[in-house]
Amino acid sequence: MTFHTEYLWFNTTRKREYINITDKVEGIVQASSVSEGMVLVSAMHITAGVWVNDAEGGLLSDIDKWLENLAPYDPDYQHHRTGENNGDAHLKNLLVHNQVMLPITGGMLDLGPWQQVYYAEFDGRRKKRAVVKVMGE
Amino acid sequence: MTFHTEYLWFNTTRKREYINITDKVEGIVQASSVSEGMVLVSAMHITAGVWVNDAEGGLLSDIDKWLENLAPYDPDYQHHRTGENNGDAHLKNLLVHNQVMLPITGGMLDLGPWQQVYYAEFDGRRKKRAVVKVMGE
Amino acid sequence: MTFHTEYLWFNTTRKREYINITDKVEGIVQASSVSEGMVLVSAMHITAGVWVNDAEGGLLSDIDKWLENLAPYDPDYQHHRTGENNGDAHLKNLLVHNQVMLPITGGMLDLGPWQQVYYAEFDGRRKKRAVVKVMGE
Repeated sequence: MTFHTEYLWFNTTRKREYINITDKVEGIVQASSVSEGMVLVSAMHITAGVWVNDAEGGLLSDIDKWLENLAPYDPDYQHHRTGENNGDAHLKNLLVHNQVMLPITGGMLDLGPWQQVYYAEFDGRRKKRAVVKVMGE
Repeated sequence: MTFHTEYLWFNTTRKREYINITDKVEGIVQASSVSEGMVLVSAMHITAGVWVNDAEGGLLSDIDKWLENLAPYDPDYQHHRTGENNGDAHLKNLLVHNQVMLPITGGMLDLGPWQQVYYAEFDGRRKKRAVVKVMGE
Repeated sequence: MTFHTEYLWFNTTRKREYINITDKVEGIVQASSVSEGMVLVSAMHITAGVWVNDAEGGLLSDIDKWLENLAPYDPDYQHHRTGENNGDAHLKNLLVHNQVMLPITGGMLDLGPWQQVYYAEFDGRRKKRAVVKVMGE
């Protein structure tokens, strides 16, 4: 069995940003030489998410607006009594989940034709990271 | 280690449909002969989900209504400028997640008494699929 | 390969309760002696969730209020025709997901500095459980 772990670092210019990391994950799978297995892609922060969806700019705008609608910024979150002001980013993380497991078959990510892997930053403008861990043989 | 990969195909008659695939996943686990491990069940589309919940018709109606309330059809999604009209299905996918990992213990799916695996179609009436990948020994 | 499976039991005093199980999961990883691999933490019920987020009391109150807002108790759910009255708990489960996969690197949970694992009970006051399954070597 091979275990291969890498970390992807992000430092976005905007508070919320959606970054297509499919090629990076595919590169890590190649580097692992695993042909059968799975790869976990998981945000290491509680104010960011990872999802698989379409690489289409209009949709990303729709998602951003939808997330702000369902998990809005609100100065009155109790979490803000700690001095933080990112309560909404925690809720957005819970809504979209923070990770995906991707199958590896024949040495490739076994994804459908439109499936792209995104790192979703909800509280950026600082260094943050995701873990990418390959397990297989 | 054994890796065993199968694909489940769907072609629903309705736009939204919720299909209990527990027996099919259990059958794939049996076919793999894995007694200890995990099985990933993941939609290969960005307008479908996979969840574990109850096989109860009233609840499925409640879920359908709830999803339409939180991630409604809306002609004005920016995604629709591409010619698509399924923006809501993308949002429903993000809301419920597109996959589950099920433990395999003693050659069986290690599920609680009411846990059933569903493929949730949000934009059907065409051929779509899910990947079922078993990893274990 | 090592496979190590344990079950965590819960019997909360309140209907909804959020329990930090990070130390218990870490202990199970130690007991497995796995140094490289992954651990699945998954609720075995359809009215409970598992998430990774912050151990901060104000935030937990915010999450509880947010979940009740997006997936409220409602006497009129069709599911309640079965005699149940926990339709909201099923929807909350779908919203936050029922499981996480945690990477194990160097014999430790490979989590970010603020990531804590929670069992989220949405319909408690009775015995319920989560499965913790370690896979690695």
